[in-house]
Amino acid sequence: MERVPVLKIGDILLVSIQVDMSDQTAVQLQEDLAERIVATGCHGVIIDITALDIVDSFVGRMLSTIASISKVLDAETVVVGMRPAVAITLVELGLSLNGIRTALNVERGMELIAATHDDDYGYDDIDEPGDQSTDTR
Amino acid sequence: MERVPVLKIGDILLVSIQVDMSDQTAVQLQEDLAERIVATGCHGVIIDITALDIVDSFVGRMLSTIASISKVLDAETVVVGMRPAVAITLVELGLSLNGIRTALNVERGMELIAATHDDDYGYDDIDEPGDQSTDTR
Repeated sequence: MERVPVLKIGDILLVSIQVDMSDQTAVQLQEDLAERIVATGCHGVIIDITALDIVDSFVGRMLSTIASISKVLDAETVVVGMRPAVAITLVELGLSLNGIRTALNVERGMELIAATHDDDYGYDDIDEPGDQSTDTR
Repeated sequence: MERVPVLKIGDILLVSIQVDMSDQTAVQLQEDLAERIVATGCHGVIIDITALDIVDSFVGRMLSTIASISKVLDAETVVVGMRPAVAITLVELGLSLNGIRTALNVERGMELIAATHDDDYGYDDIDEPGDQSTDTR
């Protein structure tokens, strides 16, 4: 069985999808990612789909599921590297990538996650101890 | 034809090899990498082989060729994510990865490239204009 590798880069997990996703590969990737998020405490998942010629409803659903799982584990998912033709087809097919944020490339995805994570600390964590102190970052 | 995506992260190009490399895919990857190094001016290439069960002489030679091409274009190549079984087989087969540096994972590979690049500036660039001035980094 093919297994998609999950690479850790700083606070981010990077997945580059290059193989055709089977049911089994997709489930394995979801499990691997969930385990790595918990093990590493990463706050971002970047999924690169540069290599994909086609994003059908199966892949779309897989991406949505990964985004939902990551969200529960306090990690933001960004899909990057979508080809122009893929974007056009997605819209034509009426497939909306629910709950998925996109960015042009890995670097912009990293910026997006960094910005989102900062926002989270600024506005959402009002009940954390010590939150009233001045932000020293 | 499968095409292995090349991802740019800061000063580094990242390639995650997941598919079986054919002659054509290997040549395409070498061309893509050489073009991207020139276009981006990146100083490091990280090749992740986590997904590879087998590194035979063909893949070994491809990695060596990529490292040599990158070197000519002033970029350091580091192979990361080698599985224990792959390392054992490589040694047993007597395949030495000529001119290839390895690191445990992507993050260590990045550190290695950053360190090498700093060294280069410290010792090798003796003929560059302004080199006599104090290093301000």
